[in-house]
Amino acid sequence: MKGVCVWFTGLPCSGKTTTAERLTEYLAESGESVTLLDSDMIRPVLCPDLGFSREDRRSNVLRIAFVAREIVRHRGIVVVATVSPFDEDRKLVRSMFDPPCFVQVYITTPLEECERRDVKGHYAKARAGQLPMFTGISSPYEVPDDSELICDTETHSVTASALEIFQAVQYRRSESDVRTALPTLRAFV
Amino acid sequence: MKGVCVWFTGLPCSGKTTTAERLTEYLAESGESVTLLDSDMIRPVLCPDLGFSREDRRSNVLRIAFVAREIVRHRGIVVVATVSPFDEDRKLVRSMFDPPCFVQVYITTPLEECERRDVKGHYAKARAGQLPMFTGISSPYEVPDDSELICDTETHSVTASALEIFQAVQYRRSESDVRTALPTLRAFV
Repeated sequence: MKGVCVWFTGLPCSGKTTTAERLTEYLAESGESVTLLDSDMIRPVLCPDLGFSREDRRSNVLRIAFVAREIVRHRGIVVVATVSPFDEDRKLVRSMFDPPCFVQVYITTPLEECERRDVKGHYAKARAGQLPMFTGISSPYEVPDDSELICDTETHSVTASALEIFQAVQYRRSESDVRTALPTLRAFV
Repeated sequence: MKGVCVWFTGLPCSGKTTTAERLTEYLAESGESVTLLDSDMIRPVLCPDLGFSREDRRSNVLRIAFVAREIVRHRGIVVVATVSPFDEDRKLVRSMFDPPCFVQVYITTPLEECERRDVKGHYAKARAGQLPMFTGISSPYEVPDDSELICDTETHSVTASALEIFQAVQYRRSESDVRTALPTLRAFV
């Protein structure tokens, strides 16, 4: 049995946390050993010193990835939800894992929809110039082109998305160590 | 099978890292899933912002404990080597684990011997007033009275100590979930 890291990336308010929480629920209910590392939850513990500059964002994802890798080494499942907007950083994270153990999930929800949701009012503040490094408005989000799964929360329910990812994790988890035997996971958008 | 955290505490140069490395070797050789979190190794990754003030030392052990707890949750073995000089912080760390999953090992090597070794020249610097918060000289080390194992590197070889701890870990790992059935581990000094 393999450890698996599911790494959610996407704009703020795109639905990463909601989907990650549902996935974590499904995994826990099925008896799996699973940890959810949500960026908002983990910042006060692991990264209270880090802000949102280019360099700090890199440090943030690397610290989370360090913990995630340890969980995977011990054959656990870890679900990470963090904006992780930069392709270079995401690729660095990916390189820390054996390919069959890493599943990047890109939540495609478009900026307009994320901004409409604006759960914490951050988009409004960013538009007003009060958040100088807010992803999507005052800081870039680089769309990934290497995600194992692509998930659109506008056209798919949280349940449908979480179930699809759940199945992908189960598949990866039960795979043998022969990497070449692993097909690329099907995107479901 | 239970996850286990072995938490080494002791003065700088007391032999924590040496014993922890040997223990990790034995565990890995026996096919166990094991991670070594040595404070010196982990600081640049998880705690580059932290110094050696009272508050920073607490944050340092709590970040390490956070990672350790995740490993234990996933039934792995984690070996931690860090000075962790304050009783209050050690008790906080201990409270983060189920009692059968936590083994604190106190390395008793006395200050005179640690200072004689002075592998990195830190004791000399501290004596010269150049390290204002160095444990044992310019910052206190509170001797624990609640360690599961006590290990004196002056009177016992690294091999003997590591083997004793190894056996304790194997015992804890294979124990059932009935906590009351767990005897206190024997100290071997």
